[in-house]
Amino acid sequence: MSIETAIAALVPVLGERITRSKSDLDIHGRSEVHYPLTPPDAVAYPLTTAEVSEIAKICNAHDCPIIAWGTGTSLEGHSLAFRGGITVDFSRMNKVLQVNAEDMDVVVQPGLTRAELNEELRATGLFFPVDPGANASLGGMAGTRASGTTTVRYGTMRHNVMALEVVLADGRIIRTGSRARKTSSGYDLTGLFVGSEGTLGMITEMTLKLYGQPEAASAAICAFEDMDAAVQAVTETIQMGLPMARIEFVDADTAAAFNAYAGRDMAYKPHLMVEFHGSETSVAADVTSFGEIAQDHGGSGFEWATNPEDRTALWAMRHNGYYAILASRPGATAISTDLCVPISKLAQAVAETRADIAASIVAGPILGHVGDGNFHAILLIDPDNPAEMQAAKDLSARMMQRALDLGGTVTGEHGVGIGKMDYMQAEHGEAWAVMGDIKCSLDPNNIMNPGKLVRIGN
Amino acid sequence: MSIETAIAALVPVLGERITRSKSDLDIHGRSEVHYPLTPPDAVAYPLTTAEVSEIAKICNAHDCPIIAWGTGTSLEGHSLAFRGGITVDFSRMNKVLQVNAEDMDVVVQPGLTRAELNEELRATGLFFPVDPGANASLGGMAGTRASGTTTVRYGTMRHNVMALEVVLADGRIIRTGSRARKTSSGYDLTGLFVGSEGTLGMITEMTLKLYGQPEAASAAICAFEDMDAAVQAVTETIQMGLPMARIEFVDADTAAAFNAYAGRDMAYKPHLMVEFHGSETSVAADVTSFGEIAQDHGGSGFEWATNPEDRTALWAMRHNGYYAILASRPGATAISTDLCVPISKLAQAVAETRADIAASIVAGPILGHVGDGNFHAILLIDPDNPAEMQAAKDLSARMMQRALDLGGTVTGEHGVGIGKMDYMQAEHGEAWAVMGDIKCSLDPNNIMNPGKLVRIGN
Ligand SMILES: Cc1cc2nc3c(=O)[nH]c(=O)nc-3n(C[C@H](O)[C@H](O)[C@H](O)COP(=O)(O)OP(=O)(O)OC[C@H]3O[C@@H](n4cnc5c(N)ncnc54)[C@H](O)[C@@H]3O)c2cc1C
Ligand SMILES: Cc1cc2nc3c(=O)[nH]c(=O)nc-3n(C[C@H](O)[C@H](O)[C@H](O)COP(=O)(O)OP(=O)(O)OC[C@H]3O[C@@H](n4cnc5c(N)ncnc54)[C@H](O)[C@@H]3O)c2cc1C
Repeated sequence: MSIETAIAALVPVLGERITRSKSDLDIHGRSEVHYPLTPPDAVAYPLTTAEVSEIAKICNAHDCPIIAWGTGTSLEGHSLAFRGGITVDFSRMNKVLQVNAEDMDVVVQPGLTRAELNEELRATGLFFPVDPGANASLGGMAGTRASGTTTVRYGTMRHNVMALEVVLADGRIIRTGSRARKTSSGYDLTGLFVGSEGTLGMITEMTLKLYGQPEAASAAICAFEDMDAAVQAVTETIQMGLPMARIEFVDADTAAAFNAYAGRDMAYKPHLMVEFHGSETSVAADVTSFGEIAQDHGGSGFEWATNPEDRTALWAMRHNGYYAILASRPGATAISTDLCVPISKLAQAVAETRADIAASIVAGPILGHVGDGNFHAILLIDPDNPAEMQAAKDLSARMMQRALDLGGTVTGEHGVGIGKMDYMQAEHGEAWAVMGDIKCSLDPNNIMNPGKLVRIGN
Repeated sequence: MSIETAIAALVPVLGERITRSKSDLDIHGRSEVHYPLTPPDAVAYPLTTAEVSEIAKICNAHDCPIIAWGTGTSLEGHSLAFRGGITVDFSRMNKVLQVNAEDMDVVVQPGLTRAELNEELRATGLFFPVDPGANASLGGMAGTRASGTTTVRYGTMRHNVMALEVVLADGRIIRTGSRARKTSSGYDLTGLFVGSEGTLGMITEMTLKLYGQPEAASAAICAFEDMDAAVQAVTETIQMGLPMARIEFVDADTAAAFNAYAGRDMAYKPHLMVEFHGSETSVAADVTSFGEIAQDHGGSGFEWATNPEDRTALWAMRHNGYYAILASRPGATAISTDLCVPISKLAQAVAETRADIAASIVAGPILGHVGDGNFHAILLIDPDNPAEMQAAKDLSARMMQRALDLGGTVTGEHGVGIGKMDYMQAEHGEAWAVMGDIKCSLDPNNIMNPGKLVRIGN
């Protein structure tokens, strides 16, 4: 069998760093969502780009699937080995290679996590802003084009990855982009690999943009009477041009889950969580302006937190939202939907989604990065109840169709994996075939994370 | 001949809107730089996406080159017909299709120019920020991934194109992206077409991000004793995190050219031109902070202009910089270099370039979007003097090598066309071959602007 031949050929290259131990396979066969255990045939732990290149060459010669793995927190089965093969775990390639403080950029290996990076940067006064809830690897975040609470101000991975080193399916090592802040030098390969979910190549080095830690920051939660009022406040804040660093929506059910999980005392109402960054003066002005907008829409109960500890606690609570919601129904698993629509359609999209969930047999607290028009209903299901699973899948399908009808996208930040494959044709039409053509030209044997994102013949 | 067959087949489709008149051919055979007249075999003026698709199908069937044309202001021979064929002039597809003021986006046809768009937007309080010096078409600007004076604040075309409709070489019509502010739904095809210089497809519709016109704005010029001091002031301003809307460098020779061309009275010294956008309060604070930085570096002669007329006059002067410099040597043509380096290397790159030019037989005033690390030396040459042409080409080659040695790119904003082809291998190595693979997969017959950006077999 070709996978077996590939594994055998890799032993002399990697020694103990290719393993078939059951525990290693199982860890790499799991995700945070409802997919069944799907272990690969082996797990490799490369240390260098040269080793990654060897892995690709050997796997390519033997038609053996390769699944790149960061921390495995992706939510659409991205890093599960549905076709077997070798999972390439980047956790041992996790160094900061170069901090260029003057240029506000950093060169890292892909296995480094975002929290580790920010820890290393602490003394420089700089930080890397993209923050998916999980402490994901930077390579995985590039893989899914991740974003998070700060995207409304600092952008997604697409905006913050300047350059990459990538190992292609045939083992060739290429460099894309540069440390220059802009370029018109040929096709934007950096942008092509960001969001390609390990289907076009393996990222082995990345150059990221950094930002100065703001002189001042202020964050608050505030309650609204109903969801419409909260969403209207968001829309107005954006249209006024207030430079929010973060603006997050949580519905009443999510607030209740926070209370239980994080020992909070939030009203059973929808809330906005907001943060401003800047100088002392500008933050003070922004806080006042936002307070006025919120009040116009019935917002109440503001408490502005300016010291780092309180703000950290606030955002830790938000980042644990997914787990808080899961914990609200013990034993449940989840389908995490991920719509993104134009801001003007946000209120409608959330309202219709809420009504649809209310009329179904499953629960689905809603929260999201509403400053970008992005929200999630976390559909909670008993894994042993096929009727609930079916209801959740149907809800999810209707949500995605709604996003498309409103001019949006079926996934604002989580990506396609296998979970969104069925909606790609509807979202992209013929452009999905073009993605397939590009995949074929870079990975003709379809060994890179096969079965995900694009449809190739089979 | 296949080109002739294609033209004959297009007459029934386009009627009078495909022409071979000498004046039409000549207009489309010229650029603003040193290339000789290179007319196409015919010029087509489509009105609809369906017509563009027909043009592609027919040209693809007959191996006839297609060169997309916006306003022809690109500087590297991008839109010249070096292999003959049909120039597709988008000037009659120039409508604003949809202004989505609430979402701050706009849907336009590619032939619309940036000035026309902003004129149409005036009443909405919104504007489109990307401003190459020329009044270029938005399709051409997407083609070259253009940027300009405001990029330091608002980004390049890469950041401001949200979605595209594209006609591929075989006539297929695809849509990329959406009006959602972010997405993780598959490969970033929008980003791939932006900067592809008409080599992958023709853009027939585009969705662009808009911004609120700032409540307040203030702009000024200020003189420095030497270039190093000016560049240091820029670097420090960036590192302080001051949110400049524009920051431009012009050297003493450029200042002299402005005096002659625009009736100014600038000292024969290097200058910075700077602008801040925001609220009355924030702009006032930024102006003060910048004033302090500039003073620390010996900057003098500030006059802040806050009314729209004075600011418009200031930036019109800057936008005419290329023509002012050309006019400083009557009869001259130019090679417009376009380096971009990490900010920490900017002073070195400019200093070495200036010394290199000073030691040569040609003049080359320097100006640039220094906030991005991007600058141009406009090398002035007598078109009938081969020694000057050679000296300029040698200078340009050394400048590009310098940019690469300093971790930068050979073109910050103008693009590759044919002028930068010889440096693509040096900048990208094997990644340039990957660009070729992508080109082949989307345009297997190599009819889309052949001979530009990528090397395909021939
Ligand atoms: C509680 C929770 C909250 C979350 N919140 C957010 C959120 O707010 N925003 C958001 O965007 N996501 C969120 N996610 C999803 C997840 O964290 C992101 O998708 C993240 O980017 C995945 O990173 P990872 O390191 O875990 O990647 P993995 O899951 O290991 O891999 C993700 C994809 O990238 C590929 N990949 C990994 N490493 C490489 C590499 N070196 N080269 C090429 N491809 C590679 C993989 O093959 C896979 O296709 C959340 C997840 C959880 C569990
Ligand atoms: C005085 C002056 C100052 C300038 N300053 C700047 C500057 O500051 N920044 C900057 O970036 N550039 C600058 N430029 C260069 C030029 O303005 C830009 O390259 C601009 O983007 C070209 O736009 P255009 O409409 O003239 O395109 P064209 O020259 O007509 O075409 C440019 C490229 O795009 C392709 N193209 C055109 N339309 C389409 C379409 N619909 N679909 C697909 N491809 C298409 C063409 O095939 C070609 O490859 C300057 C030029 C001049 C003359």
